Amino acid sequence: MSDMTSTADAPRSPGRPRSVRADEAIVDATLDLLAEGSTVETITIEAIAARAGVGKATIYRRWPNKVALLRDALRTLKGTPPEPAGRSVRDDLVLLVGAIGHHVDPRAARIMPCLVPEVNRSPDQYELYQGIIEPRRQMMREVLQRGVRAGELRADLDVELTMAMLTGPMLVQRMLRWHPDLDEATMPERVVDTILAGLRPRD
Amino acid sequence: MSDMTSTADAPRSPGRPRSVRADEAIVDATLDLLAEGSTVETITIEAIAARAGVGKATIYRRWPNKVALLRDALRTLKGTPPEPAGRSVRDDLVLLVGAIGHHVDPRAARIMPCLVPEVNRSPDQYELYQGIIEPRRQMMREVLQRGVRAGELRADLDVELTMAMLTGPMLVQRMLRWHPDLDEATMPERVVDTILAGLRPRD
Repeated sequence: MSDMTSTADAPRSPGRPRSVRADEAIVDATLDLLAEGSTVETITIEAIAARAGVGKATIYRRWPNKVALLRDALRTLKGTPPEPAGRSVRDDLVLLVGAIGHHVDPRAARIMPCLVPEVNRSPDQYELYQGIIEPRRQMMREVLQRGVRAGELRADLDVELTMAMLTGPMLVQRMLRWHPDLDEATMPERVVDTILAGLRPRD
Repeated sequence: MSDMTSTADAPRSPGRPRSVRADEAIVDATLDLLAEGSTVETITIEAIAARAGVGKATIYRRWPNKVALLRDALRTLKGTPPEPAGRSVRDDLVLLVGAIGHHVDPRAARIMPCLVPEVNRSPDQYELYQGIIEPRRQMMREVLQRGVRAGELRADLDVELTMAMLTGPMLVQRMLRWHPDLDEATMPERVVDTILAGLRPRD
């Protein structure tokens, strides 16, 4: 049974091709080094290769450069994005807002906040950051555009601004514990319902 | 004329008491050290005293401990908070949202992002962070409460959640350039107007 309960404990299961195992070891080594204090700037392909127990050529066969490898590695911290059901715009937004700032890998707590000060330092860093969040942003964009087409949302909706408005509150709460009394568990639905309804009294 | 055009160039103007000049030198030394790479954890009263050219006793006469000094020093980065005019709730919110993530001291760009990863490390750090933002948060809280009392905002408004919703979008844009195409200059009024009106179509 034990080899079925945890794939993490069985990286050398004979059913998986050697190249997949090498890719996983490389991504894992990258995340370990970042969690231990390497930065996006200081981490090297040499150090990753040494940590993963592979040659540099193995890494370059799969990733053209460091930024591409970092992007794939950092994406795994967040796990698979949730799949909007495609029925209620409100419910899909609650699902996507709930995934903001949520990580499946515990190393994220050490890696992600430290990425923030680096984001604005160079075009490379910024491209890396955008490359990680853009696929998730695109899912939210599509839900909002669907809502506009269906007449559930205002025809003049500023989609990019609305995405920042849905994302910002969760991100500052999860990254900065912005307000200690806010309940994170119910926050996604309360943020979505508040922004849908607006702050003015209903008349 | 020159001694009237810049107080920064005239710290030793004879009209200012010696204690005020010492306080300014201490705050300035603190910010210099943080901007040069000292962290909230590693900076010491000794180093600040040496940089400011004062004795440790001079610092302890004014501040009981390091966190109190850091709080005052970091507050000066943001300058004087804007004064809501107290007439239109909408205009007051635009004013306060516009001040979020805005700094008057250029050292802030090097200091503030690096503070983020530290915030969640210890109760001291967290208290420091809350101590800096709470006075400004209180101004926004009062505007929202005034809006509820005046019937301009919903009676069932969740004030703390609304503050996070007004703050988050500006903060992620200014700290992370969350979306490169968002116009920061008009963002405060667009965020406020969007959240006031809600996303649903007007019917």
